[in-house]
Amino acid sequence: MAKKIPFNKPIIIGNELDYIAQSVHSGKISGNGLFTEKCHWRFEEKYGFKKCLMTTSCTDALEMAAILCDISPGDEIIAPSYTFVSTVNAFILRGARVVFCDSRSDHPGMNEGLIESLITERTKVIVPVHYAGVACDMNKIMDIAKKHNLFVIEDAAQGIDSYYVFGNSKEPLGSLGHMATFSFHETKNIIAGEGGMLVINDDRFIERAEIIWEKGTNRSAFFKGEVDKYGWVDIGSSFLPSDIIAAFLYAQLEKIDVIQKKRLSIWRNYQVELEPLESEGFIDLPQIPNYATNNAHMFYLLCKTNKQRDDLIAFLKNMNIHAVFHYLSLHRSQYYLKDNNEYHLPNSDLFEKRLIRLPFYFELTVDDQLYITNAIKSFFNLKE
Amino acid sequence: MAKKIPFNKPIIIGNELDYIAQSVHSGKISGNGLFTEKCHWRFEEKYGFKKCLMTTSCTDALEMAAILCDISPGDEIIAPSYTFVSTVNAFILRGARVVFCDSRSDHPGMNEGLIESLITERTKVIVPVHYAGVACDMNKIMDIAKKHNLFVIEDAAQGIDSYYVFGNSKEPLGSLGHMATFSFHETKNIIAGEGGMLVINDDRFIERAEIIWEKGTNRSAFFKGEVDKYGWVDIGSSFLPSDIIAAFLYAQLEKIDVIQKKRLSIWRNYQVELEPLESEGFIDLPQIPNYATNNAHMFYLLCKTNKQRDDLIAFLKNMNIHAVFHYLSLHRSQYYLKDNNEYHLPNSDLFEKRLIRLPFYFELTVDDQLYITNAIKSFFNLKE
Repeated sequence: MAKKIPFNKPIIIGNELDYIAQSVHSGKISGNGLFTEKCHWRFEEKYGFKKCLMTTSCTDALEMAAILCDISPGDEIIAPSYTFVSTVNAFILRGARVVFCDSRSDHPGMNEGLIESLITERTKVIVPVHYAGVACDMNKIMDIAKKHNLFVIEDAAQGIDSYYVFGNSKEPLGSLGHMATFSFHETKNIIAGEGGMLVINDDRFIERAEIIWEKGTNRSAFFKGEVDKYGWVDIGSSFLPSDIIAAFLYAQLEKIDVIQKKRLSIWRNYQVELEPLESEGFIDLPQIPNYATNNAHMFYLLCKTNKQRDDLIAFLKNMNIHAVFHYLSLHRSQYYLKDNNEYHLPNSDLFEKRLIRLPFYFELTVDDQLYITNAIKSFFNLKE
Repeated sequence: MAKKIPFNKPIIIGNELDYIAQSVHSGKISGNGLFTEKCHWRFEEKYGFKKCLMTTSCTDALEMAAILCDISPGDEIIAPSYTFVSTVNAFILRGARVVFCDSRSDHPGMNEGLIESLITERTKVIVPVHYAGVACDMNKIMDIAKKHNLFVIEDAAQGIDSYYVFGNSKEPLGSLGHMATFSFHETKNIIAGEGGMLVINDDRFIERAEIIWEKGTNRSAFFKGEVDKYGWVDIGSSFLPSDIIAAFLYAQLEKIDVIQKKRLSIWRNYQVELEPLESEGFIDLPQIPNYATNNAHMFYLLCKTNKQRDDLIAFLKNMNIHAVFHYLSLHRSQYYLKDNNEYHLPNSDLFEKRLIRLPFYFELTVDDQLYITNAIKSFFNLKE
């Protein structure tokens, strides 16, 4: 049978099914059960996050953050255009207007040097997205936020187990903004199919976050004995995932070091095999700025033209290799153009047109990687 | 060891863990995977729902419905006060003002006779809640909606496998309103810990529902080949549950007839054992109106006073039996009173004060039920 390499492949890596059975036997598989608490505790302990709240998706975590920032109609947020639609939809649902920031020339993350020029008196939040798990320059962004009295919500959907480096120090992504959001979607480093987490690093948000998480009730305070009975005190939603989801995730979280070691080796294999193509000037490989670490969330390369990128995807598809492009610039989307003028974000457009993501999953073998990189080399007519 | 009877106890009833493993092996455990499709198909086939979309919770299904009804600031919705907070919060998140309708005197469901007096020119939606899986009088409600050009969203969180009866005909709850929402929270008849479903019975909403479900993108149309590439076209959220959740639910859905048979027998046992208490005038038992069926979602009884109800809960707790009260009237909650005057909804308050729910789950044995009903009888000093 011909080899067939998918773009992504979820796995059961440890005790996922056992833990789900344990969750059922614990007598509670709704939100905030045994494994939800275990996940909270372990994330807080491992990464020093002040407060973690599991959610049904990173989108939902962003929606919680938007509510906590009291986004009201007319408020503005600054976000990259080269990102997933939820980065901004979460704020638009609360009435925000989105002001898009271009990407850096060397990386899809937002160009920190442009942010200040986009701030108006209505700006309330900056949403840096750590694309591919590679940090934005957070010191710069936090300084701007402090100067203009803005909140920073890190969209760390792809950023688990990655770090921001400054001087001799490094801090985990998700620990730097006022809040941060993570995804455990099946394409991420650790997964639960769909799933997410809100991290709260600023004390001011914690009490209300627990209320909004619990559908706008003070149920958490009730269970801590702080109020006599719980009732409706705020807006909110059912942001809690089933404990089944947390049980699945917890089994993956226990193995995160094994997963990360393997993913980093996959990433380096791609880099080593594809370097000759870069040296010959056919492609550009991803750059990791000196203020960032690499969590091996994805491996992408940049073609020289849009046509070449699309041809390469088609070529690989013919060889049963599923490689994909990524985001479409949001500032040129049908929805945004309805109420806004198009503006010029050349780097965002560059990554939209030239970026291609290669298959990346735990069980990807060295042989399969070689099959992929050789296919790419043959596309560019380089000797293998 | 002393007997200990919880209020609820989730179970693995069939192939839950096998199906989760199958979902992982299918290569896709994010939303809209193999088991999500199986659930959609089976619900549509079994209950004649026009279009089903699995969601992460009933709350999220209600939020989708609110978006689909284009709820805007100032719009009014009519809902019972004796309900879960999400019934109304989902609409408040879109800017709606809530007008509360009192319960019937014989049942916590909204008093259909009061609805018309609550309609104003801003009213957009009626949200009947099928409390305990017992139908509201849907013909009356649909007639009112038609006359005043309103949408009806059935909150059928508790209503799976229950029916509205009229003449010689019966229709499943969830198939009668323009849209309907279900819950698969761990206390429901079939469960996934947390989980829900939006049912769309009115064609006008289907296309946009698929977009809003997929975070405001036309991804569904893309996969059906209706558009070349998919992008951002609307607001939306990540309403899809992980396929792990759908896999768990599907195993339960396959066994729904077994589950329902057992639950109905538990319900009848309670009824038979407690009838003497009702005859003696100590309590009232639940009434099923002639236009409704009983899906045995819960068993409740009504004490004569609030104090007696609270004393009974405490008495049972001392005997290791976990019985609980249910909703607090939303019209008297801290959140609602912030912007509204208190009004007088005596039946809602009656159910708040006098209703007690008894332990109810698949594995509840006849012996345990007898232990519970004897405890209740001894509280009222009736001979066993």
